[in-house]
Amino acid sequence: MNALIIIAHGSRRTESNQEVVELTEKVRQQASSRFSLVEHAFLELAQPDLPSVLDKLVEQGVDTITVLPYFLNSGNHVMQDIPALLDAAKSKHPSCNFLLVPAIGKYEGMPELILQGACQT
Amino acid sequence: MNALIIIAHGSRRTESNQEVVELTEKVRQQASSRFSLVEHAFLELAQPDLPSVLDKLVEQGVDTITVLPYFLNSGNHVMQDIPALLDAAKSKHPSCNFLLVPAIGKYEGMPELILQGACQT
Repeated sequence: MNALIIIAHGSRRTESNQEVVELTEKVRQQASSRFSLVEHAFLELAQPDLPSVLDKLVEQGVDTITVLPYFLNSGNHVMQDIPALLDAAKSKHPSCNFLLVPAIGKYEGMPELILQGACQT
Repeated sequence: MNALIIIAHGSRRTESNQEVVELTEKVRQQASSRFSLVEHAFLELAQPDLPSVLDKLVEQGVDTITVLPYFLNSGNHVMQDIPALLDAAKSKHPSCNFLLVPAIGKYEGMPELILQGACQT
């Protein structure tokens, strides 16, 4: 069983965190057979945090977890903080496979998404 | 002549700002006939700022400018700060058409972009 975690920064604004929850629900609906489970987590300022979501998924029997940083830039959160949390999870759950993919801002499809948005008016 | 401005938050990290420059170059290459010009701007911490890019484009003869917030959440920057800068530009350049599109995090294609990124490993 595999899972995808969308890890966002987290905000003091409830509305911003709710946008992540809603986005995760849309990804879940579109994931079809690609991921058994799709969850969200926050790095700071909001719950659930990444370690508790990772623990929960492993307890549920997930053996492959993909972690996707929902960040536009490759700053310290993406390059250091999230990898450090993943390293801790690997030590804690050695039988689970953890994959960290690049931050959303680096994806090849981003320019086309921008152009789609820019042309919607 | 029309133009697209990708407005990002801006960072103290040169590398993060450079990612926006590189993304803008990719959008420019893919824009083909949709936009005559594609530029980037930063809201804080880096240059060029939005008002100076807007002024420059109007001086170059652009009569329709689309402003796209490169932000994942609809926080104060997206809901208040960028619209305020646009309002000021409308007063300063009444003959130019300014369009503000939603922030990138709100686009319908975002869930699919996430799934493409999540499945690349």
